[in-house]
Amino acid sequence: MTNDALPAEIDGFLQRLFPLTRSLTGDGNRETLRVLQEIAPIELNEYSSGVPVYDWVIPDEWSIRDAYIKGPDGERLVDFKVSNLHVVSYSEPVHEQMTFDVLAPRLHVLHQNPDVIPYRTSYYSRDWGFCVTGKQHELLSNVEGLLEVCIDTEFNPAGSMTIGSLCVPGLSDEEYLVSTYCCHPSMANDNLSGLIVTALLAREMVSRDKPNKSWRFIFVPETIGSIAYLCHNEAVMKKMSGGLVATTCGGPGLFGYKETYMGNHLVDRAIQLAFRDRGITPLYYPFVPDGSDERQYSSPAFRIPVATITRDKYYEYSEYHTSSDNLEFVSGRQIAETLNIYRDVLRILDQNAYYCSEATHGEVQLGRRGLYPDIGGAVNQSGALAGAEQAVQELNAITWLMFLADSEHDLLTVAERSGITFSELLRVVKKLIDHQLLDFVTD
Amino acid sequence: MTNDALPAEIDGFLQRLFPLTRSLTGDGNRETLRVLQEIAPIELNEYSSGVPVYDWVIPDEWSIRDAYIKGPDGERLVDFKVSNLHVVSYSEPVHEQMTFDVLAPRLHVLHQNPDVIPYRTSYYSRDWGFCVTGKQHELLSNVEGLLEVCIDTEFNPAGSMTIGSLCVPGLSDEEYLVSTYCCHPSMANDNLSGLIVTALLAREMVSRDKPNKSWRFIFVPETIGSIAYLCHNEAVMKKMSGGLVATTCGGPGLFGYKETYMGNHLVDRAIQLAFRDRGITPLYYPFVPDGSDERQYSSPAFRIPVATITRDKYYEYSEYHTSSDNLEFVSGRQIAETLNIYRDVLRILDQNAYYCSEATHGEVQLGRRGLYPDIGGAVNQSGALAGAEQAVQELNAITWLMFLADSEHDLLTVAERSGITFSELLRVVKKLIDHQLLDFVTD
Amino acid sequence: MTNDALPAEIDGFLQRLFPLTRSLTGDGNRETLRVLQEIAPIELNEYSSGVPVYDWVIPDEWSIRDAYIKGPDGERLVDFKVSNLHVVSYSEPVHEQMTFDVLAPRLHVLHQNPDVIPYRTSYYSRDWGFCVTGKQHELLSNVEGLLEVCIDTEFNPAGSMTIGSLCVPGLSDEEYLVSTYCCHPSMANDNLSGLIVTALLAREMVSRDKPNKSWRFIFVPETIGSIAYLCHNEAVMKKMSGGLVATTCGGPGLFGYKETYMGNHLVDRAIQLAFRDRGITPLYYPFVPDGSDERQYSSPAFRIPVATITRDKYYEYSEYHTSSDNLEFVSGRQIAETLNIYRDVLRILDQNAYYCSEATHGEVQLGRRGLYPDIGGAVNQSGALAGAEQAVQELNAITWLMFLADSEHDLLTVAERSGITFSELLRVVKKLIDHQLLDFVTD
Repeated sequence: MTNDALPAEIDGFLQRLFPLTRSLTGDGNRETLRVLQEIAPIELNEYSSGVPVYDWVIPDEWSIRDAYIKGPDGERLVDFKVSNLHVVSYSEPVHEQMTFDVLAPRLHVLHQNPDVIPYRTSYYSRDWGFCVTGKQHELLSNVEGLLEVCIDTEFNPAGSMTIGSLCVPGLSDEEYLVSTYCCHPSMANDNLSGLIVTALLAREMVSRDKPNKSWRFIFVPETIGSIAYLCHNEAVMKKMSGGLVATTCGGPGLFGYKETYMGNHLVDRAIQLAFRDRGITPLYYPFVPDGSDERQYSSPAFRIPVATITRDKYYEYSEYHTSSDNLEFVSGRQIAETLNIYRDVLRILDQNAYYCSEATHGEVQLGRRGLYPDIGGAVNQSGALAGAEQAVQELNAITWLMFLADSEHDLLTVAERSGITFSELLRVVKKLIDHQLLDFVTD
Repeated sequence: MTNDALPAEIDGFLQRLFPLTRSLTGDGNRETLRVLQEIAPIELNEYSSGVPVYDWVIPDEWSIRDAYIKGPDGERLVDFKVSNLHVVSYSEPVHEQMTFDVLAPRLHVLHQNPDVIPYRTSYYSRDWGFCVTGKQHELLSNVEGLLEVCIDTEFNPAGSMTIGSLCVPGLSDEEYLVSTYCCHPSMANDNLSGLIVTALLAREMVSRDKPNKSWRFIFVPETIGSIAYLCHNEAVMKKMSGGLVATTCGGPGLFGYKETYMGNHLVDRAIQLAFRDRGITPLYYPFVPDGSDERQYSSPAFRIPVATITRDKYYEYSEYHTSSDNLEFVSGRQIAETLNIYRDVLRILDQNAYYCSEATHGEVQLGRRGLYPDIGGAVNQSGALAGAEQAVQELNAITWLMFLADSEHDLLTVAERSGITFSELLRVVKKLIDHQLLDFVTD
Repeated sequence: MTNDALPAEIDGFLQRLFPLTRSLTGDGNRETLRVLQEIAPIELNEYSSGVPVYDWVIPDEWSIRDAYIKGPDGERLVDFKVSNLHVVSYSEPVHEQMTFDVLAPRLHVLHQNPDVIPYRTSYYSRDWGFCVTGKQHELLSNVEGLLEVCIDTEFNPAGSMTIGSLCVPGLSDEEYLVSTYCCHPSMANDNLSGLIVTALLAREMVSRDKPNKSWRFIFVPETIGSIAYLCHNEAVMKKMSGGLVATTCGGPGLFGYKETYMGNHLVDRAIQLAFRDRGITPLYYPFVPDGSDERQYSSPAFRIPVATITRDKYYEYSEYHTSSDNLEFVSGRQIAETLNIYRDVLRILDQNAYYCSEATHGEVQLGRRGLYPDIGGAVNQSGALAGAEQAVQELNAITWLMFLADSEHDLLTVAERSGITFSELLRVVKKLIDHQLLDFVTD
């Protein structure tokens, strides 16, 4: 797929996914995951409502048909069909006439930003409410007489919560995860961007040769979904080596990197290297336990080191959790650029390896293998090898790789110490393996 | 005791203690410790003169009744009764007539600061001498004829050296010390300030519930006193976990912190945290073995990590070891402010603990325990929770505490990583214990 | 030897050694090592051509009698007798008439620096060529008619490669190496400077009392020489503790320090301390495996930590690998200055030791041993001890040494922590040993 085709493809998925009403449960989530199945063969599972998962219980399945606030003249002053953000997610049903004063405590509004609808939920406390712009709020407050308030929702205790996953077994049992969340309604950066990036990463992983490491891609409602997933897959999740939570990665701003709870894990180093190799310095977000599903994956019983690459990071952009987090803010091109970073990180984690040389006593004679210039004395002499930069760079990579070829340094470490890109090292390692100078170490 | 009462109380003790003639031994020390017994139930011990303690010997008890230099007309030109600093501490007795030229080598004067009397000792080499201001020195040098020189002192080989101590047993055998020295005569910062701070810390420790750790408060002459104390309490001192030497902590200048010989010990981290939580950046003094009694406590056979909190630190203020280190330089309010820091450090060391959660698999559901806002989506959204800062801060503390609740992180570490104050963490931990979410780990 | 005599002596050796034609093998190398034997009793060994050493083979011995390019009029336009750099080292013999166009690919010229002859080799690929200045290149290109090209060389498969070494056994088996290379023809900084420094260091080591550590001085052709040496001395070289490669240390520029592959090895710390104690901040060169014979000594099977002290470092000065690296660039005085640093480093490595005190419980009483001022109170009091700086400094050294005297700190660490020079610490340690306060620890 060309560089131009991918952004366009992503834009197509954004258009289709944006309007769906996602929540913890419900058909909006199923439909979202079904659309993503067009990208990668994601497997869907239903976790039945009412079943305990650790400290939690899978909630009743919630569905919504309609919701509105009508004025005395029957006009819809607030309409779910215009924006699904208008209804507090998991609102219980209501259909009543009431004055503004009675309704007012049920209205959520961002007074400092009166043009946007905020996003609110009431997952675990039965309640109902509307989210409105400042202008709608003012309009409603000026209505004389009764308002007709309707939320046409249903809770189904026999329903279920839908999650998606895709496991790609690799040559090694060492396993990494990429997780994203599918519970947010019509907001593009938070988190259509993460859903699409994760699906595209999964597509690449299944479409190539068997990877070196095993990979697991997880699509769940935030918090309850990852907790339920951990509960249903406890043994394998306790052995997980590390991972990423893909979220808010399609904005127009600067790249960001939120470190794992360890800060210096292989996952962190892979991310730092991926950015370095592209010449990008991301915004750095120290680990805090407040965030996304790394809170669950890194919780004491699991302690999976999980990082996040963002653009723009949740909390940090003014459109966050509002109706302005839309398709004007997010684009296929922006998501494709972030995807490049995620892809590099996955490649580094997957292809990182320890390797060794049999010829460890002094240097090998590169000259007789055609790996060293015949005429000596000029390498590193200022100006002497104009035009031969590439050969000199390869010689540099060879020298570093052979020097550290003692089974105790991995390629990531060589990249860090030498300043040479991971992909250049991979290329040269393959050449040296062809010359029978190096070999990979298997555990 | 109110904030106003404590400085006044301290001022009262300063007034009473300042005039006493302290030295390595003698009634001035006994009287000083008896006054401090009004603050806390310090136990006094007498170590007999002539008894070896490691490489040293307890000196003969020294007492002084009077000392002066009279001019030919009988006027006291230098008078011990005006300032006990005038006599070199541990001077042997003398009563002679002599010319200035004969006396001159016995006169100690700070020529660069002619208004002050310097402080000098001759503890371990029998000698005598006077300390005088530059003006006195000039006056004496102009005297024609004989001066009458008298030092009326006595050495008692059957005497003793007095030390004070107070042990507060705690719930745990882990023990910390606070040591201070009582050998300096009329100087306020060095070291009435340390004596009073230590006594007040001891009072607080005995007046509350049994502390978590055991605490030992030691009042000794510097060097010989701490060496003798170590020698008489060797076994228990070799198990001491850490400590503080309280000295020069009542000046008007900036707070200072001299690290332990380890630099990163729990004691150091507790001090750094105490300052951080009060928004103070102290002057930092790297460890050097030259200093106060940490030289003894941290010596190779003991290696107790001992730090010091100062204001202004010995060596670093121009009044140091002179008659200007007086009650104009030091005040009860200044000492009370430093006491706050010491108290915080003791509280951190005492209440620091490892803790764990039984609910370690993912987050616990805070919502159904009333620990999370019912309406979701607004936390961390710019401007959305105006007025609810305190609830958000508590949620932040809960999240950090629960995340690190794995028996391997102590509260001090949580405070360091999270930026949350130690006292706020303590408060929230108690709340979470009440909710049966956390428990302390006992060894 | 006085400070003036040494530079003059070095200048004498520079004059004699500069003209010799060194290479991987041959009489130029033998003659060079024989001259250096006048400095120290270096032992010469011959490694037979054709013998494999690890991945390499000792090359046939190469000798050169003459070489030139003559114009049609018989004039030598390029003449080996003017500069031995004119011939690519290890050129095969040739004697032919040819046009400039045929000759041109065999000519090496530094176009960006047309006044100098570059240095080129063709050790492991049979070839021949000339190195010429830009001016010579232009002159030759303007010759009409045939040029007479002659290189009168010979390869002797029954020859050998000459290496020099000098082992100085010490009181301990712990062994360090100083290695330098003898394969470069008429270039002064690279590497007559290293040869002379190494020989002078060897002279000092054999002329004093038996050193504490064992020392090995190695003079070899670069790369093949050190590889061959490692192969012939594998067992002892695998136990080597660390070392230095002496190279390019006679230039007029700034001192440089290239760290070992470990970066924080005792060798690195000794070098950093030697510079610190002289108040010099050298240019810092992080470890890269591209360099000199540390590539061999530090290769995976040996991992000897080897550093280099330079002035000006290879690669970094514009005269590098050209005819301008001559006796105008390098001087005896410059070499003598670098020798000082190398000598300090060897002294630190040799005399560094762990030590302990029997009197570890508190401080010892310095006063009764005459190691403390009789009158106390004045040490560290601003201005009180004018004129006694030296006594105060010694007291500082005593305090640090006694404090760390626990068999777990070496003198190097004391120097680093205290800021006191290594030589001052050595002096004071001896004094304290005389007072039976300290003793060295033997393993």
